Amino acid sequence: MDIGAINCLSYEDFVRILGNVVERCPVVAAAVWSSRPFPSVAALEAAIDDFIEALPESGKEGILRCHPDLAGRELQSGTLTPESREEQGHAGLDRMDASEVARMARLNAEYKERFGFPFVICARTSDKATIAEQLRVRLRNTHAQERARAVEEVKKICRLRLRGLVLADQNNKL
Amino acid sequence: MDIGAINCLSYEDFVRILGNVVERCPVVAAAVWSSRPFPSVAALEAAIDDFIEALPESGKEGILRCHPDLAGRELQSGTLTPESREEQGHAGLDRMDASEVARMARLNAEYKERFGFPFVICARTSDKATIAEQLRVRLRNTHAQERARAVEEVKKICRLRLRGLVLADQNNKL
Repeated sequence: MDIGAINCLSYEDFVRILGNVVERCPVVAAAVWSSRPFPSVAALEAAIDDFIEALPESGKEGILRCHPDLAGRELQSGTLTPESREEQGHAGLDRMDASEVARMARLNAEYKERFGFPFVICARTSDKATIAEQLRVRLRNTHAQERARAVEEVKKICRLRLRGLVLADQNNKL
Repeated sequence: MDIGAINCLSYEDFVRILGNVVERCPVVAAAVWSSRPFPSVAALEAAIDDFIEALPESGKEGILRCHPDLAGRELQSGTLTPESREEQGHAGLDRMDASEVARMARLNAEYKERFGFPFVICARTSDKATIAEQLRVRLRNTHAQERARAVEEVKKICRLRLRGLVLADQNNKL
C-alpha cells in the first residue's frame, strides 16, 4: 500500500490498518487522519511525531504506559499485540533462560518504580544483551531525560511499524 | 473500590481497570495516573475532562474516531467492547428490526461523511428513538459545534463508566 492509497482510506480503515503504529494508542493514528492527504510517508511520520510532541508531559507518559514490559508477563502469556510479539522475538527476548528472565524482571521493576512508566526501546533494532545494558544505563537518567528518551524510542518503533505497512518513498528516512 | 484504593493502584492496574472509561483510549487513563492522588472521584473525572480538553482538535476527533458506530457492524458481529455492548443494549439498539437497522446505518453513514467521525451519544441515558432523532438533529450542526457536542457525550459516557468502577463520593455529581 503506497501513500496515495493510504490517503484514500476512510478513518475506519486508516485506524484499522495503522491503529497500532503507536502501541495500544489508536487515538494517535485516528487524530492524524485529520491531516491527510500526506504528500509522503515522511510527512505521515512527521504528523505522528508532531502529535506526540504536542501532548502534555502526562500524555507522553500515558503513551509509554500503554507499552508492555520487555520480556514480561505478556510475552509469557501470549497477550502481546502482534507487532510487539514480533519485535520482542526479533530481539531474542522469547529465547531467554530463567536467569535472564529473572534479571530482566528485576531491572524492569526497578525502572518502573523509579520512573512510573515501563522501559521502552526499539527492540526491532536491538538484541537482548543491548536491551539489558540500556536498561541499566537509562536507569541513571533524570525523570525528564528518560521520558524524552523513551518518547524517541516510541517514534523509532512507529517509523519501523509504518514501513512494514506503507511502501517507502523517496523522502522516507529513518 | 473507593478513591483511596484507586489512588494506591500501580499504573498497570490503573490502566487495566480504568483503561476503557474513554472508549478504546487507554492512553487517557494512563496519562491522568500522573496526577494521582485524587481527592475525590469528581477530581479524577475533572482530570480526565481537562486532559481531553487540552488535546488539539485533531486529538479530540481522534478520540471520537475510536468509538464504534451505534447499532453498527461491531454490534452485529459481537466485537464491541463490553462497556459499549452493555450501553448499546441498554438503549435497545440490539433489539431493532431490519428497517430500523437500515435507517440507523443510513444516518450513521451520512453523519460520518459530513463530519469525519462517528456519531457519539451517551446511550446509557438514551433510547433508540431518541438516538435516531438526535442523529438527525445534530447532522445540522457545524463541524466545530458537533465536535464540541460529541466530546461532551464522551465525558458523560466516561463519568457513567467511572461510576460503575469507583464508589461514588460526596463530591460526585454528573
